[in-house]
Amino acid sequence: MVEVDADNGAGREMYEFVRQLYPICRSITGDGLRETLAAISRSIAPLRLEVHEVASGTPVLDWTVPKEWNIRDAWVADSTGKRVIDFQVSNLHVVNYSVPFRGRLKLIDLRAHLHTLPDRPDWIPYRTSYYDETWGFCLSQRQLDAMPDGEYDVCVDSSLAPGSLSYGELVLPGSTDEEILISSHVCHPSLCDDNLSGVAVSVALARSLSRESPARRRHTMRFLYAPGTIGAITWLARNRERVNRIRHGLTLTCLGDSHPFTYKRTVLGRADIDRVVAHVLRHSSLSHAVIDFFPYGYDERQYGSPGFRAPVGSLMRGRHGTFPEYHTSADNLDFIAPDRMVESLKVLQSVVQVLEGNSAFRNLAPYGEPQLGRRGLYDAVGGKTNIPGLQLAMLWVLNLSDGKHTLLDIAERAEIDFRVIRKAADLLEEYALLSRATA
Amino acid sequence: MVEVDADNGAGREMYEFVRQLYPICRSITGDGLRETLAAISRSIAPLRLEVHEVASGTPVLDWTVPKEWNIRDAWVADSTGKRVIDFQVSNLHVVNYSVPFRGRLKLIDLRAHLHTLPDRPDWIPYRTSYYDETWGFCLSQRQLDAMPDGEYDVCVDSSLAPGSLSYGELVLPGSTDEEILISSHVCHPSLCDDNLSGVAVSVALARSLSRESPARRRHTMRFLYAPGTIGAITWLARNRERVNRIRHGLTLTCLGDSHPFTYKRTVLGRADIDRVVAHVLRHSSLSHAVIDFFPYGYDERQYGSPGFRAPVGSLMRGRHGTFPEYHTSADNLDFIAPDRMVESLKVLQSVVQVLEGNSAFRNLAPYGEPQLGRRGLYDAVGGKTNIPGLQLAMLWVLNLSDGKHTLLDIAERAEIDFRVIRKAADLLEEYALLSRATA
Amino acid sequence: MVEVDADNGAGREMYEFVRQLYPICRSITGDGLRETLAAISRSIAPLRLEVHEVASGTPVLDWTVPKEWNIRDAWVADSTGKRVIDFQVSNLHVVNYSVPFRGRLKLIDLRAHLHTLPDRPDWIPYRTSYYDETWGFCLSQRQLDAMPDGEYDVCVDSSLAPGSLSYGELVLPGSTDEEILISSHVCHPSLCDDNLSGVAVSVALARSLSRESPARRRHTMRFLYAPGTIGAITWLARNRERVNRIRHGLTLTCLGDSHPFTYKRTVLGRADIDRVVAHVLRHSSLSHAVIDFFPYGYDERQYGSPGFRAPVGSLMRGRHGTFPEYHTSADNLDFIAPDRMVESLKVLQSVVQVLEGNSAFRNLAPYGEPQLGRRGLYDAVGGKTNIPGLQLAMLWVLNLSDGKHTLLDIAERAEIDFRVIRKAADLLEEYALLSRATA
Repeated sequence: MVEVDADNGAGREMYEFVRQLYPICRSITGDGLRETLAAISRSIAPLRLEVHEVASGTPVLDWTVPKEWNIRDAWVADSTGKRVIDFQVSNLHVVNYSVPFRGRLKLIDLRAHLHTLPDRPDWIPYRTSYYDETWGFCLSQRQLDAMPDGEYDVCVDSSLAPGSLSYGELVLPGSTDEEILISSHVCHPSLCDDNLSGVAVSVALARSLSRESPARRRHTMRFLYAPGTIGAITWLARNRERVNRIRHGLTLTCLGDSHPFTYKRTVLGRADIDRVVAHVLRHSSLSHAVIDFFPYGYDERQYGSPGFRAPVGSLMRGRHGTFPEYHTSADNLDFIAPDRMVESLKVLQSVVQVLEGNSAFRNLAPYGEPQLGRRGLYDAVGGKTNIPGLQLAMLWVLNLSDGKHTLLDIAERAEIDFRVIRKAADLLEEYALLSRATA
Repeated sequence: MVEVDADNGAGREMYEFVRQLYPICRSITGDGLRETLAAISRSIAPLRLEVHEVASGTPVLDWTVPKEWNIRDAWVADSTGKRVIDFQVSNLHVVNYSVPFRGRLKLIDLRAHLHTLPDRPDWIPYRTSYYDETWGFCLSQRQLDAMPDGEYDVCVDSSLAPGSLSYGELVLPGSTDEEILISSHVCHPSLCDDNLSGVAVSVALARSLSRESPARRRHTMRFLYAPGTIGAITWLARNRERVNRIRHGLTLTCLGDSHPFTYKRTVLGRADIDRVVAHVLRHSSLSHAVIDFFPYGYDERQYGSPGFRAPVGSLMRGRHGTFPEYHTSADNLDFIAPDRMVESLKVLQSVVQVLEGNSAFRNLAPYGEPQLGRRGLYDAVGGKTNIPGLQLAMLWVLNLSDGKHTLLDIAERAEIDFRVIRKAADLLEEYALLSRATA
Repeated sequence: MVEVDADNGAGREMYEFVRQLYPICRSITGDGLRETLAAISRSIAPLRLEVHEVASGTPVLDWTVPKEWNIRDAWVADSTGKRVIDFQVSNLHVVNYSVPFRGRLKLIDLRAHLHTLPDRPDWIPYRTSYYDETWGFCLSQRQLDAMPDGEYDVCVDSSLAPGSLSYGELVLPGSTDEEILISSHVCHPSLCDDNLSGVAVSVALARSLSRESPARRRHTMRFLYAPGTIGAITWLARNRERVNRIRHGLTLTCLGDSHPFTYKRTVLGRADIDRVVAHVLRHSSLSHAVIDFFPYGYDERQYGSPGFRAPVGSLMRGRHGTFPEYHTSADNLDFIAPDRMVESLKVLQSVVQVLEGNSAFRNLAPYGEPQLGRRGLYDAVGGKTNIPGLQLAMLWVLNLSDGKHTLLDIAERAEIDFRVIRKAADLLEEYALLSRATA
């Protein structure tokens, strides 16, 4: 049910947005994160991104908001003063959250602070040290191999000091306070698929949905842009009473690569969002897999923790940890493509469409089959209709609309695309054969 | 569990009955339908077929009983007066329910009223126009190709006028008012498999069951012979209070062809009738498929509509719409065979046997296994018995007869033919090891 | 989760025990059975085997304890006085429970009392005649073929007289009176796999479990050594009030051969014991099959009868009746192997471990994920831990420990070996992140 003809405009916009954000050195706190939220804010104007700042040291659930980290420069220079590892070339070169350091070390001592990928000798790994006050550099194996023994000057010109953690929220109000949560982690530095692609697709989804009138929107849409783990935990700590309004939720990640889609179910396993994403993917022509929840990955594990049990699944293409480019410098602008992000966007649009349009109805002529022909709902002579599959969809909707089955229930049992079922229901409602069931 | 050695007597009788009914021009109302009901009535004498006549214009559920249609003659003649399409040759040649017409038309104008099957150039299609007051002819593509341009005289000597809709009911009373409904549509003109085969098998089933004493019959058997859709709807409208007595039901269609059996489940999906037909077919040597309900096909969709939800499945061999002969002149006397109808009859007899014999029992020696040998239920030395599988069946019945499991539950779990399980239960009851559970 | 490195000590001990018991002529009553129970008693000292004697004629459920059978000698001699069939060579030669007989018969008359296996001409079959007062001999087909026509002297020097039925029970008390029952039939004469192997493994399991303090044992362990069918029935009759304390149970049989394991589920189909044995086997490297219950086989059918419904499954390697050596002289000391019995023992030890360790817990920091790193439960920098899989297991335990899911539920859903899940739970309990759920 996903139209895959690339919307080139949307694809270009998303890709340009990623290109703009790519060079920024983000982390779970700090100015790079703020700059990113500011760019999101500009991109969705006139919609309003509410940016929150939560002070270091604030207790959040079982955690504490950490000190704020900022970095200006970092390098390792050889005895001639030449920078052999340089933060200015790639922000991946410094271990994220490295504490300030200045000194001269022999290579043999420096090595304990250096991280490479021997199997991928040209790639720089991405490493973090959020909760351990140390410093380090990441570099390609070839760079390391080219470093002769001897002494090196090391500089990490960073700061780790009381400050705040930033996150942004965008809310599109609906006619009820039942919410759909779209959550994207926004803490990774120069990595495109993980997760600038998720952020860009989320922003594009928000923009496309904002074009509809809030009166026609049933759910309140909440878009969250927060650092992974600690950001979701901070949001949860500050919104404990709001969590049980989340009726459906998704974390978005790795939505720009060329892998088939993977949908990871919520911890509940058969929540509406699980059924809807599976339905949308099954009725698309897109390769995909649906996998069970496991308590690892992204922030679905925070939302789904036993105290909250919010039904939040995860939509991705490439699955974290299973493709070699993951968390390396090879997750760059070449690794993602506009068309792939457009596919991701369309899947999400379809998912929201189904969530919005899923209701239970009651057949108003439930005894026998109503005479559709008399009402002009059939061709008189044959049994032809000019919308393929719609006639059978009408019969399914009439037969199962006993006030208990939702349109999704019907679409699943009939194995018919939700949109056709929905169209049939609209038509039957228009012809006074169906009425919305009240709860 | 179906004995497939052809009962040639029954097969010949059913085939002869079809041959007798074949030439009659039936429709959803009219004299052809009445003549068919009269033939059924004669065939089941001294059992009584109650024939109902319901006046045109009577509101029935969401529908209205239509005007009555009768036809005497219909033809298209060329300029020499020669009949090139002739109702007297085959009643399929006229679109069923064609309004009276007399006129001369150029071929080019006549064509809008002609229906052929280009892919099957020798076959005449079967078409109806029940709720659209028009007229038309059906003919083979070869006939049409042989018609030169020019003018043609057209005559449809029919009448469409207030009258009544006819249907017939045969009831075999049982010891309870819980009913088994066997419903066959009886409205199609010269088509053998669809549905003279269903009618003939239904009549043969009624006759065979009538040989047993009503006191020994638990369910009341209701055989309905009514026009498709409008006939079932008329019956439902006039028997609203009786519908909830239907414990099990089947529509019968296409039971004379050589295709494997298809059983289409009730809308409930796991009603007793669904389990019983699947069990009987699985323990037969007959090729078959069991498919899910869908709200199309025959009158199971009326009985199963949300206001009624009667558990009515559909038994067929060839599945409507999936074999080329369906609704064409090729569904003729050569397309069906006595042996195939005998197989169908035997499946139905087995189904009724299981429905009648399915009860829950209570093991009267439930602590440990009773000593069967002491009672002579085993051979003493070995563990041999002269009825194959009966010993294990006895152990299953003893083990699961806790007053909750029915014999069908036991047969399903044990994967043993119901008849063997039933035999074991009878034996154990005789030996005072089992008593019928009261509800 | 089963360590298959053979524990040679245990294997040798079990095999020696079988070798010691092999020559004894056991039956469902009599001195051979008593001698076997005495050997078990010696083997488990200082643990105490309580031996019960139940008088012939005692009513037990639907049965009666039979007369006691003993045998001193039995033979068939030819006209020269040479013993051509001799009980002293193999106790299988006499039909078990043969009544005393002394006489001279022509071969043609003797044949009615002789049993062979024509398809396995070198093997002696095993036959019984418990409830039919007759006599007979079993011999190889070759022996029979070598017997010329003529007269033979026959002697069955047995006795069938009032006495008693013997069985033994060993109880390892636990901290609750919830019981695990391990039941082995002990009535077969010189057959190794069926069931000296089951007896030997049961004894080895009892000995290994007895090394742990009763205070640390949750379940009371009951080991039953009783003749098949009548023994279990006798125990049930004398312990009716105790049966509902059985939380989990297994019958053991054929645990020394080289076939893959077969676990036959309880009649309940999804009892804890069913899930646990399946889990242990699935997480072992051992070939195995899990099959549904059927009311035949060993004493699981008595324990699971409708009056009791105790959850007792059956663990075996070769499945009774499906391998040619079953119930023949080929089920000898060569047919079993120490290593196979060690594998069986280890499976059982793992099963008991899981049953003992399975509890539900409550996550004490259920809102979001607790910060494991702060507590030293993670490596700080990476996400490495030195116990493979333990980190993910911890996350699973935290996520699903809502007081309702047991560790087995978690292990099944996570598809992680119970022992790793258990280790994670222990660690989290130690770090005050988990507390045992009270019922």
